[in-house]
Amino acid sequence: MNCILLPAANFLHDRAHIHALPQIDHVHNVLAAKVGDTLKIGQLGGHLGTAMIDNMTPDCIQLRDVKLTMPPPPKLDLTVILALPRPKVLRRLIMDMTALGVRDIILINSYRTQKSYWQSPMLKRLNEFVLEGLQQGVDTIAPRISLQKRFKPFVEDELPWLVSKGAIVAHPYTSQSLAQYLQKQYLQKQDLQKPSALAMPNLVCIGAEGGWIDYEIELLAAQGCEAVHVGPRILRTEAAVNVLLGQWLL
Amino acid sequence: MNCILLPAANFLHDRAHIHALPQIDHVHNVLAAKVGDTLKIGQLGGHLGTAMIDNMTPDCIQLRDVKLTMPPPPKLDLTVILALPRPKVLRRLIMDMTALGVRDIILINSYRTQKSYWQSPMLKRLNEFVLEGLQQGVDTIAPRISLQKRFKPFVEDELPWLVSKGAIVAHPYTSQSLAQYLQKQYLQKQDLQKPSALAMPNLVCIGAEGGWIDYEIELLAAQGCEAVHVGPRILRTEAAVNVLLGQWLL
Repeated sequence: MNCILLPAANFLHDRAHIHALPQIDHVHNVLAAKVGDTLKIGQLGGHLGTAMIDNMTPDCIQLRDVKLTMPPPPKLDLTVILALPRPKVLRRLIMDMTALGVRDIILINSYRTQKSYWQSPMLKRLNEFVLEGLQQGVDTIAPRISLQKRFKPFVEDELPWLVSKGAIVAHPYTSQSLAQYLQKQYLQKQDLQKPSALAMPNLVCIGAEGGWIDYEIELLAAQGCEAVHVGPRILRTEAAVNVLLGQWLL
Repeated sequence: MNCILLPAANFLHDRAHIHALPQIDHVHNVLAAKVGDTLKIGQLGGHLGTAMIDNMTPDCIQLRDVKLTMPPPPKLDLTVILALPRPKVLRRLIMDMTALGVRDIILINSYRTQKSYWQSPMLKRLNEFVLEGLQQGVDTIAPRISLQKRFKPFVEDELPWLVSKGAIVAHPYTSQSLAQYLQKQYLQKQDLQKPSALAMPNLVCIGAEGGWIDYEIELLAAQGCEAVHVGPRILRTEAAVNVLLGQWLL
């Protein structure tokens, strides 16, 4: 938790209060802060800044001198389509994609997504994981998350409308590397000075454990998603998400 | 587990056997394989290939037609110096760095590393985490791992000998981005066609939660480690490791 995010309702003029227990616990036990100390805070959907601790009880922390002057960092111009993963890793994946600044996250069904994953109680807790991600990444704007239980209709009818600067699908068993894909994009755009911003696609599809099956890759390819690999090594979904999205940070 | 790695002692001519329980469990329950099926296997420190299941019991799987013809993928020319993290995340960090192909891993003490971490029983299980990482990343060559409990003597006396192509330290609170660092390296090397391979440093230092303190950054800088950031967002150690090392895969 690199900042404490509070909903607009917790602010009044230059005062605010914290009453969520994980945040109170963090202030007490991780920061070991006391009255008079300054905290990094932010308003959900608003600006970032600081506030001073005015009063502390076990279930509420009162803040004064609230100054919210810094806009949140820009979102990545990126939609991630992720095959719904095991519930156990869902929390960290949502946190990481949020912390990295992904604007849109679409959790989709895939052949290797087990049906039971869609019944997981973790899916009811997405807002909580988003809040953790925002407080980790020091951002205030939540990504938009949607669930798509039907792969084929989504890919054929909706995905094409989401692509503006190109789309890729991560697939270890393909011949084109991400570097080759980007190189091809640079050359098309004739500008070697600013390769990344220009060449980066705005949509990336990432499979769950076991990846995509050929049928899925073909359906995605038919809608313009080019399969790319990042080398011969096969990565855990979490590692793959960070490795791939890290390319947008440079 | 994208391949099953066995020690040399488990092979005899074109036969081999699996008797480690996690591997047997994987063959039975994840792969649901049966006699006559082909498995992807490899010899620790040797080649990768395939073998056919000849016989299965609950505590041993006999393999025949062992063909180990493929060399493992090349290691990254990279030493990662990582501040010893919380034991809970150590397993995934070692797995991911191994799967990504890091050649050398040095776990070091830092100001924000709690003393108790050095007593964790997880430190006795590094070989197990490396095996998981190799089986994930489909590699057979373990990274070299060393532990350095004394930050200053290590940084001053040993680190300089490890640097051949440049060194960086990840630090969110610095002015130079990794992109700017790499751009500077490209320009020095006068070759825009193959930027990454030429410009990538061969040593990267990554802090644990809370990152490095200024004193540590100064000590590292004095030995030529340039501080770089990857944007305004602060990432979990695991996410940061994958985001940073992912740059070596392109």
